Amino acid sequence: MNTPLLNERDIAFLLYELLDTGRLPDRERYREHSREVFDATLQTARTIAEKYFANHNAKGDANEPTFDGAQVQLIPETKAAWDAFAGAGFLAAGYDYEEGGLQLPEVILRTAMAYINAANISTTGYLFLSIGAANLIHAFGSEAQKARYLPPMREGRFAGTMAMTEPAQGSALADIRTYAVEQPDGTYRLFGQKMFISGGDQSLTENIVHMVLARIKGAPVGVKGISLFICPKFLVNEDGSPGARNDVALAGLLHKMGWRNTTSTVLSFGEQGGAVAYLVGEAHKGLGYMFQMMNEARIAVGLGAAALAYQGFNYSLAYARQRPQGRLPSSKDPLSKQVNIIAHADVKRMLLAQKAYAEGSLALCLYASSLFEDQSTAPDSETRRRAALLLDLLTPVVKSWPSKYGTKANELAIQVLGGSGYIREYPVEQYYRDNRLNPIHEGAEAIHGIDLLGRKVGMQQMAGYSAFRENVAATIREAAGLEATAGFTAPLEAAMTRLDEVTRHLLGVIPANPDLGLANATVYLDLFGRITLAWLWLWQAVTAAEGLNQPGLPQADHDFYQGKLHTTRYFFQWELPETDVMADLLSRLEATPLEMQDAWF
Amino acid sequence: MNTPLLNERDIAFLLYELLDTGRLPDRERYREHSREVFDATLQTARTIAEKYFANHNAKGDANEPTFDGAQVQLIPETKAAWDAFAGAGFLAAGYDYEEGGLQLPEVILRTAMAYINAANISTTGYLFLSIGAANLIHAFGSEAQKARYLPPMREGRFAGTMAMTEPAQGSALADIRTYAVEQPDGTYRLFGQKMFISGGDQSLTENIVHMVLARIKGAPVGVKGISLFICPKFLVNEDGSPGARNDVALAGLLHKMGWRNTTSTVLSFGEQGGAVAYLVGEAHKGLGYMFQMMNEARIAVGLGAAALAYQGFNYSLAYARQRPQGRLPSSKDPLSKQVNIIAHADVKRMLLAQKAYAEGSLALCLYASSLFEDQSTAPDSETRRRAALLLDLLTPVVKSWPSKYGTKANELAIQVLGGSGYIREYPVEQYYRDNRLNPIHEGAEAIHGIDLLGRKVGMQQMAGYSAFRENVAATIREAAGLEATAGFTAPLEAAMTRLDEVTRHLLGVIPANPDLGLANATVYLDLFGRITLAWLWLWQAVTAAEGLNQPGLPQADHDFYQGKLHTTRYFFQWELPETDVMADLLSRLEATPLEMQDAWF
Repeated sequence: MNTPLLNERDIAFLLYELLDTGRLPDRERYREHSREVFDATLQTARTIAEKYFANHNAKGDANEPTFDGAQVQLIPETKAAWDAFAGAGFLAAGYDYEEGGLQLPEVILRTAMAYINAANISTTGYLFLSIGAANLIHAFGSEAQKARYLPPMREGRFAGTMAMTEPAQGSALADIRTYAVEQPDGTYRLFGQKMFISGGDQSLTENIVHMVLARIKGAPVGVKGISLFICPKFLVNEDGSPGARNDVALAGLLHKMGWRNTTSTVLSFGEQGGAVAYLVGEAHKGLGYMFQMMNEARIAVGLGAAALAYQGFNYSLAYARQRPQGRLPSSKDPLSKQVNIIAHADVKRMLLAQKAYAEGSLALCLYASSLFEDQSTAPDSETRRRAALLLDLLTPVVKSWPSKYGTKANELAIQVLGGSGYIREYPVEQYYRDNRLNPIHEGAEAIHGIDLLGRKVGMQQMAGYSAFRENVAATIREAAGLEATAGFTAPLEAAMTRLDEVTRHLLGVIPANPDLGLANATVYLDLFGRITLAWLWLWQAVTAAEGLNQPGLPQADHDFYQGKLHTTRYFFQWELPETDVMADLLSRLEATPLEMQDAWF
Repeated sequence: MNTPLLNERDIAFLLYELLDTGRLPDRERYREHSREVFDATLQTARTIAEKYFANHNAKGDANEPTFDGAQVQLIPETKAAWDAFAGAGFLAAGYDYEEGGLQLPEVILRTAMAYINAANISTTGYLFLSIGAANLIHAFGSEAQKARYLPPMREGRFAGTMAMTEPAQGSALADIRTYAVEQPDGTYRLFGQKMFISGGDQSLTENIVHMVLARIKGAPVGVKGISLFICPKFLVNEDGSPGARNDVALAGLLHKMGWRNTTSTVLSFGEQGGAVAYLVGEAHKGLGYMFQMMNEARIAVGLGAAALAYQGFNYSLAYARQRPQGRLPSSKDPLSKQVNIIAHADVKRMLLAQKAYAEGSLALCLYASSLFEDQSTAPDSETRRRAALLLDLLTPVVKSWPSKYGTKANELAIQVLGGSGYIREYPVEQYYRDNRLNPIHEGAEAIHGIDLLGRKVGMQQMAGYSAFRENVAATIREAAGLEATAGFTAPLEAAMTRLDEVTRHLLGVIPANPDLGLANATVYLDLFGRITLAWLWLWQAVTAAEGLNQPGLPQADHDFYQGKLHTTRYFFQWELPETDVMADLLSRLEATPLEMQDAWF
């Protein structure tokens, strides 16, 4: 049973009806582009996704990379996929023409990536880390570093990684131990071990550029003593040709629950005297630089989670439409024909929940991508400023909500298929296993709760929060004027008011008692995310209601818009009410976990 | 890092402080037993679990059974585990002495099985299906059938299966197509295909006794035309020796997400002229018979889910206690020592939730086992009647709640470990994969919602429900008299009152509009389960509060009881409040999923 990658109608809705993507060619940077160019780009991505990525999604899962002591072995389709993606120019597509790029907007490239993710997320680790590593050098590297590394990275001859985590610390970057020793020639030698490094070794590219966080000997302790280095697997000669093997060794492969076709590695730096490395930007500022890559990666994580949720939804929907089983409770005649399981209320619930999570997550990620775009290319400075604030505020939600609820969507896809969902003969259990990484990497869920409540919400006198609040209020005003959506305004307004109260309350507690004020930050993140999604669904509903008013609407569009409205109804009836429970818990500064004692476990 | 199987202190608490297991030797059937015998039995089970099951939990997962066209290959540890279990007499332990059994009570045997499950659930499929199949023959077979099959099944020479599901139908047993043709000699020939048959083929035993549901040619349609047959893999000669191969063929192995060391098979009956089969009991009554096996299996599923939840909790707790990472929000000094992650509020939340789900699920399953016991061996008929009613009512909850929340517990265990939780180098991701089967097999979750709301709650003028209501009220009365638990009584009373209202409301709607009344039965099941667990936690809290009043209590016991009280606090603060949201949804007969149209997806 073949199911489509994502949903072209929904993509068009999100890009061109909900978001202002169609207006981007009005901006200077995109004046040579048009909707046709954007659509052709997406079509290319979809074709590559179908032809070079979907073909080995299951195969890569069943035949994970191996290491024979000398070389990492990958199934050959991986290299073909890498080459197709690089060959189409996607590794460079976001750069300016003069840099060898296609000067395409962020929101289009993210959508293109969503197709690739939907086809085979477990091969995409190589791609998105390479793009991120190149962006980091582009933003903070010297001209010489850019000249040496960026061309081969954009062409796909070099890949990149993000080497932060170490065995002795996970999320606590302040405590990394890898250290760098400066050499008379201004280069450094790295010593230490990194863990969970995706794509840390592979057999796809002639070189791998590791972006490594390390502490220069004698640097201040904590996050303010961390520097960023380029450390290539092979040194690069002056003429750009590959030189000697650097002192970076693959200490081992890790064997993941899913996402298996991207290697996860333990890397040893400096076992043979020191890995040659080059400082990026200024010393001790590495963590700040890395955050650029992490913030991009966090949107990428949300987007990947959304794409997997989407594929589970697509597959389980197609399955439910063709699988006869049982009868409705009202049917007492055992001779009557069985219904397809999509007729069962509980199956429809599970499909609706998936639709709400998948389409809502995709809407969230594309909205974030539009903010990413606006912060640099919007014509007026106020829009740019506002976009940057909103993106900064929402990044924890963009990373976490799709990860949590996308994974939940995949659990529901398994349940819709029943026994078939549990066996590898069907694709949905792999979606779950792949997606389960997302609430963990690029900052585990709890980190983002603390980031949101402890940092983002209060920053700049709540400027980001206020901008968000205004957006929600604007959508509520629009919704109030439409018959189809007026009923949604009161519940969202009420939830938003509670969020205001809870936020003020917690921000008042945190300065004097941060342990108590932040104890339930994960719940706050969930509350904030749920309200954000309710807003995005209402915004979609308003857009759909306007779409329905178009004269001569084809039946397929009519159904599509009705689907958006009905899924909004689902979200407001089934998902939004829980915000009350969360707000209650946060308001009373619930401290049962905080007060639990080790010995009582 | 080795973690214990379950928790001996908790087992002792559940069996001897919460439940009346210590009084069972007062009953006629157990007068030769004592607590010492019970404990020795559990000790034997634990030793076998540690020695013969835990040793290949990961290995069986990584090396799933294969079929070379002639023989199913299993890792050799599987046979050693089967032999150890059978050799200790556990396949027969529940039977009377004169039947070759050990005449041990249900609750002890279930607890023994929980140890085995905790060590390696994926090898246990063979065991519990064989026990169930033997019980079925014991209850409904003829004397000749019993004489032929039970001795080798109890000795472990024959295994058993439960062959119901077919490729064209999953949960809808009314529609099975496998058919039986009666022969002049009174035997039958079976024709058809069965799917998802656990242990349907293996290389552990000299024979396999399939308990097969099939329709005798010409039988009435629907559930009233289904008969139960014994269909052995090898025919059995008059003297009990194995005869010719029967016409049952392994059509293929299925490849599961977890639970991999138990084969899941597609079996073909009658491709060579008909599989010889023997009618069990009366024709057309097979489904009723099979329900005995299913009801036992449903408790077994809940128990397995509880055991896996327990192991994930144990492992993630041990991990959190020894893994240093980060500092508390109140600590601003980067030079200060890192804390172990158990100090973080969100980690404690995830551990508390696991403790609540795991220990609560085990309490539920052992309580159900005590009801199972009481319905046949309680001295007075009123206790027997009441136990049977309660067990019948609660079986859907016993099956479903641990399955859903045990799986959720395992997700949390993964999250506590972070990146390490996601790799197969650590055991917790396997627990999740193993546990994910439980909300699917022995009736998918939705089936149990409909069973509970559509059948169990209303049966016999709500006699089971009333008995449950009385139990809850009795615990509330006890709790009200203790300082440590008095604060829990009002919220549980309120939740119970809402359950009463919702139940009456829905039972009023169902007769005229079953599709609407049963549309949210899965939510009803969740609501009922959550209240049941709140009651079980309150019951445990009362028992713990009484335990705390003992003079000269050792510190370890003090901590244990405090843990029970604090976890009750967690359950009432974090889990119970959601019952309001569920009750609201049910009260307003929420119909968004029901009204969703296929075309709108």
